[in-house]
Amino acid sequence: MPIGVWLVGARGSVATTAVVGAAAVRAGAAPPTGCVIEAADFPRDFTPLGDLVFGGHDVVATPLRKRAELLAQAGVLPPVLATLLAADLDAAEAEIRHGYVPGEESQAQAARRLAGDIADFRERHGLSRVVVVDVSSTEPPAEVPYATLADLEEALASGRDALPASSLYAYAAFTAGCGYVAFTPSAGPTPPALDELARRGGLPYAGRDGKTGETLVKSALAPMFAGRALRVRSWSGLNLLGGGDGATLADPAARESKSASKARAVPAIVGEDVEGLTHIDYVADLGEWKTAWDHITFEGFLGVRMTMQFTWQGCDSALAAPLVLDLVRLVARAHEAGHSGVLPELGYFFKDPLGGAGHDLPTQYARLVAFAQALSEGRP
Amino acid sequence: MPIGVWLVGARGSVATTAVVGAAAVRAGAAPPTGCVIEAADFPRDFTPLGDLVFGGHDVVATPLRKRAELLAQAGVLPPVLATLLAADLDAAEAEIRHGYVPGEESQAQAARRLAGDIADFRERHGLSRVVVVDVSSTEPPAEVPYATLADLEEALASGRDALPASSLYAYAAFTAGCGYVAFTPSAGPTPPALDELARRGGLPYAGRDGKTGETLVKSALAPMFAGRALRVRSWSGLNLLGGGDGATLADPAARESKSASKARAVPAIVGEDVEGLTHIDYVADLGEWKTAWDHITFEGFLGVRMTMQFTWQGCDSALAAPLVLDLVRLVARAHEAGHSGVLPELGYFFKDPLGGAGHDLPTQYARLVAFAQALSEGRP
Amino acid sequence: MPIGVWLVGARGSVATTAVVGAAAVRAGAAPPTGCVIEAADFPRDFTPLGDLVFGGHDVVATPLRKRAELLAQAGVLPPVLATLLAADLDAAEAEIRHGYVPGEESQAQAARRLAGDIADFRERHGLSRVVVVDVSSTEPPAEVPYATLADLEEALASGRDALPASSLYAYAAFTAGCGYVAFTPSAGPTPPALDELARRGGLPYAGRDGKTGETLVKSALAPMFAGRALRVRSWSGLNLLGGGDGATLADPAARESKSASKARAVPAIVGEDVEGLTHIDYVADLGEWKTAWDHITFEGFLGVRMTMQFTWQGCDSALAAPLVLDLVRLVARAHEAGHSGVLPELGYFFKDPLGGAGHDLPTQYARLVAFAQALSEGRP
Amino acid sequence: MPIGVWLVGARGSVATTAVVGAAAVRAGAAPPTGCVIEAADFPRDFTPLGDLVFGGHDVVATPLRKRAELLAQAGVLPPVLATLLAADLDAAEAEIRHGYVPGEESQAQAARRLAGDIADFRERHGLSRVVVVDVSSTEPPAEVPYATLADLEEALASGRDALPASSLYAYAAFTAGCGYVAFTPSAGPTPPALDELARRGGLPYAGRDGKTGETLVKSALAPMFAGRALRVRSWSGLNLLGGGDGATLADPAARESKSASKARAVPAIVGEDVEGLTHIDYVADLGEWKTAWDHITFEGFLGVRMTMQFTWQGCDSALAAPLVLDLVRLVARAHEAGHSGVLPELGYFFKDPLGGAGHDLPTQYARLVAFAQALSEGRP
Repeated sequence: MPIGVWLVGARGSVATTAVVGAAAVRAGAAPPTGCVIEAADFPRDFTPLGDLVFGGHDVVATPLRKRAELLAQAGVLPPVLATLLAADLDAAEAEIRHGYVPGEESQAQAARRLAGDIADFRERHGLSRVVVVDVSSTEPPAEVPYATLADLEEALASGRDALPASSLYAYAAFTAGCGYVAFTPSAGPTPPALDELARRGGLPYAGRDGKTGETLVKSALAPMFAGRALRVRSWSGLNLLGGGDGATLADPAARESKSASKARAVPAIVGEDVEGLTHIDYVADLGEWKTAWDHITFEGFLGVRMTMQFTWQGCDSALAAPLVLDLVRLVARAHEAGHSGVLPELGYFFKDPLGGAGHDLPTQYARLVAFAQALSEGRP
Repeated sequence: MPIGVWLVGARGSVATTAVVGAAAVRAGAAPPTGCVIEAADFPRDFTPLGDLVFGGHDVVATPLRKRAELLAQAGVLPPVLATLLAADLDAAEAEIRHGYVPGEESQAQAARRLAGDIADFRERHGLSRVVVVDVSSTEPPAEVPYATLADLEEALASGRDALPASSLYAYAAFTAGCGYVAFTPSAGPTPPALDELARRGGLPYAGRDGKTGETLVKSALAPMFAGRALRVRSWSGLNLLGGGDGATLADPAARESKSASKARAVPAIVGEDVEGLTHIDYVADLGEWKTAWDHITFEGFLGVRMTMQFTWQGCDSALAAPLVLDLVRLVARAHEAGHSGVLPELGYFFKDPLGGAGHDLPTQYARLVAFAQALSEGRP
Repeated sequence: MPIGVWLVGARGSVATTAVVGAAAVRAGAAPPTGCVIEAADFPRDFTPLGDLVFGGHDVVATPLRKRAELLAQAGVLPPVLATLLAADLDAAEAEIRHGYVPGEESQAQAARRLAGDIADFRERHGLSRVVVVDVSSTEPPAEVPYATLADLEEALASGRDALPASSLYAYAAFTAGCGYVAFTPSAGPTPPALDELARRGGLPYAGRDGKTGETLVKSALAPMFAGRALRVRSWSGLNLLGGGDGATLADPAARESKSASKARAVPAIVGEDVEGLTHIDYVADLGEWKTAWDHITFEGFLGVRMTMQFTWQGCDSALAAPLVLDLVRLVARAHEAGHSGVLPELGYFFKDPLGGAGHDLPTQYARLVAFAQALSEGRP
Repeated sequence: MPIGVWLVGARGSVATTAVVGAAAVRAGAAPPTGCVIEAADFPRDFTPLGDLVFGGHDVVATPLRKRAELLAQAGVLPPVLATLLAADLDAAEAEIRHGYVPGEESQAQAARRLAGDIADFRERHGLSRVVVVDVSSTEPPAEVPYATLADLEEALASGRDALPASSLYAYAAFTAGCGYVAFTPSAGPTPPALDELARRGGLPYAGRDGKTGETLVKSALAPMFAGRALRVRSWSGLNLLGGGDGATLADPAARESKSASKARAVPAIVGEDVEGLTHIDYVADLGEWKTAWDHITFEGFLGVRMTMQFTWQGCDSALAAPLVLDLVRLVARAHEAGHSGVLPELGYFFKDPLGGAGHDLPTQYARLVAFAQALSEGRP
């Protein structure tokens, strides 16, 4: 039975790539490379990529067809797909609604409107479930001063702008009875009042900040050092980001969210503080690509110092989009199976895994496989 | 109760570092950095490093004190240790016997002599168990044409040189009732006739080719690509090796053993052929250090090509010596617990794991931890 | 007045890129990025790119339009250019003649035919001068046993295959009264008999092996070390080549030509032997791109050892094509000015500069600028 | 005839290495690796390293012998030298005087005292000339509001702290009749009032900020791109610095001086703005070493984008000390030859060359060689 994918940031690079990619796989024009749950370790009964229906919110107006052409020019999509799959792009385009713009309406009004958009989409397509995914631009860090759902709803009712935009979308998603995926480092569903709302509605969510590049490698390498009892002494990094993601992060406040998210993995895995900073720079010339260099010093037997460096040259949209398609299918199935609140079992996908999931990639992977199998076999 | 460590290549860099390191830890002069089984995941009841007694065979005569000084000058050992631990070096020095040199005696005579040296060492020190470890120079690949122990012993009895040197040492070790660790890519205990001898004697062995650098990183990164369903398209590498190891590998035949050992990991993990070669060069100027550069191309969603590179700058002796100390204690315990023949549970330590152990580092690590716990709890 | 460019290997990547690029610059669709003599240090009176007329020999039949499409798909050419400049491609296509295939005809016959093709081209287009450029596949190293032109011509007359193909093309070029550029490491014009022919005809030539990537960087960095009196101890490299160039070099014999060419620069610049090898691997997955990693150890004050590494990720055709366009215009002008025989002043362009030109990039550049100015001012 | 080297920061790593190194070369214990003017391109008549006499100012009290031991432990000096050359270290130690500490005395008093120390040193050793070199910690950027020497001296006379410390040292040096080398990015001799003082006294000076690592490589590579007409699009870098230099630069204000100094080279050489930042991080674990990674994107023919990366792993003291010894001998000779004011001919040594010297390394080198030859031949 088809399920819905509601993308916040529906005209962004990740969203466009996800729409094109799902259609390409359905059309037999591409294999599901990069989709984790299509691999041999996973049960075969998740919703097929071809049974996903796309819609979403955005505040920019560039149509998906145009976005797909730009991504094709940038080398992210094979040029032929933008043409071949024009009908699929138009279908998703028809399901994009105007997003939330602070000041245009009260947050209470906006929340009702956004939730209504999602509910209409679900009904119009007869979808069993819709999962909302935040793939919009990263927000600066934000505090939500309302500790309980009651406090929050009172603030909204009194006309206040009580939430950062990402959390307003999560509020709307939960209000509409949908699971949620926080694919960015923004606050999204993390304020306690929203967790309360999700649990009350029996709604699962997962997050946060998709782990697609440098942090992925960190979470694979740090356990190697830890397992070998080699002591990591410093870990420094420079991330060069082009494209929309980089431009957002040219704003130091937004960059702070991202850097905080990135800094946690290594000390958490090796079990002690590690010297070193991770920088993020916007380099427009890189286009849709990003490059990260990491430099690690470590200590071996009898205090000998050694060094490792790596350079990662990735295309973020191509790495993120298949994970979005995985997450939607996992969260929909978890929703169906009665899971509610945060899903720490999905920590494998995230830089800053919610729910105490740990950062060690092999452990995260084993937990994900076990969770997927339990879902498939109807176990809790 | 003390156990014996009998090092084949007892005056080499790895052996010297192991002797100095065990003494330094016992003296409280260094922590056991790099010793895997000292970490929190492992039971605490393995033989302490201070209860290891060292001896071995070698064909070169430079005394251990001199070797330790040279390693200190090369930055592998803190200079103060060579002085501080002179008594420990002298004690090990007194237990080094002349190794096997083809032509000096028949292999049958040599085997009796080598086994006698080991048995004398065990008795002289009242050791419960001795584990023999091959840390000598890498041999060219060799075929042993004797399929059964009976065939082999007949050949030896008739005065033939039936075995490569590394296998003669393994034969002597098994004859003397000792477990064995093949830390180099040489044939060692792998001919079926030797496996038969080990099983008949209830003797465990592990191998082969200690995984200390580039292949370690490969076995940590390849599962990351596989788990993310990213398709590895090429994996090329250049290893620059100084020191004794590098000089041995300047011989193309010996290099062949090493390259074959290195080439297996990635295709085994990702489950398909991967384009690319791994080169090994001797660069004398690197001294005891080695540097590896690896270049990986991989394919993501919709065929997008991406790239990763890493550079590893390590000191082989400092990486290998603590693993030797781990292996001796694991094999001694396995011997005591009645394990016999190859120990696939120790595949974590090796580039070319014997016994069908697989190459995926996280899986190898989980298996090692489980094995250590079973040994500790007296389970099979 | 227009000049002719006769490309040996006229349907290869470099040739196709040169044809498209010259047309694109003429059409105002691209700036002359990568063309050395268009920069401010050079006189402004070289033949404009738009006044070049293209033809050539090849033994493969894929038409230029198709080749341009393939290069566009590989990201070497903007896709729009292949369409926009179809007429220019067709014009060059019409001037491509069948190349030399050993066995199809005697070398004497072939030389007459090839020279005739070039002379016809010159007449048909009323060209003042034609320069022949070898951009075909690299040959294995070859010896030419005929020391004088008389010996060589006697051998040809007697029906023998006296020359490697690249030298046969050079013979035909000189016979037709044309200057010649050896852009590959093949023998081309280097046998003394051909130098004699060139000098007798008052014909200049330049070579060999276009310096477009790793060796370019080497020749910029080695003088830095030399100037600072830092002692280069080792220089190791691994070149990963995709595309046609890489496939040719998968043949060890051809690779030998290339490796020899690459090995000369550093010792020549720093004035002493330097340890280390340069490897060349074919990695099909890299397509038209190539990646080189170099690792350098050097010694500073009081013997301190330091290290530098670089990774170069370039597109060979895009780097080579503008140099071909520079060289043609320089050689044509040198021809006009009465230069004859090898032109060491053009060593800046080559890995293996003929005529004792030296390998130091800054010195080569200064010599090139001086030569261009002398040509412009009518000085010898 | 001996000349004096007066080091501001006489107990720092660079100063200690310079003292040990000059003594080691005199004793025949080391070759002058890293000394530019000892190479073949230079005249042979500069003051020999053995005829340099050392003294200086510092505000820390750790004796040179102790500093040399620490540098030996850190691998910067061969351990044997610290012992072998103890007498030379003690001789220099005896010539170190207390430096300037703001608040301990007025700047006018300090200037007199500092100049007196230098003049006494010159007389005591019968030195023809003394050159003062600033190798102390980098200061934050500073403005000197006194445009003329008269204004400055009036301010000092009235008891004001008119100058940053580095400029006070330059003032004292000029007052004592000495040439000056600004080896750090601090203001030093750059305020116009000090230039006036230098010219009035017929005193030469050179600066600033010794070019020892990443910027050296930049100034060698940027001309390569420019010469090939390849368009540099972005140049990003991360510098990881251990040791004293790094700790000073952990102060963002001091780092600002350094970053500004580093940012100028590439745009100046390629002639247009280039995107990208250069970061400087303090990583204590690197000790006396530093590592820089640079990432360059550039555009070739028809807009094709390509990439180069390099990693530089250097030991700053070992790179800087021989340059200090070069500069002292060059400035002493220039002083003798009547040069006065800034010496743009020495721009080769500096990240931020004073006097309009340009950043292109090959051009700087050619100018230096010409200047040295003119000095040697008594030409202006």
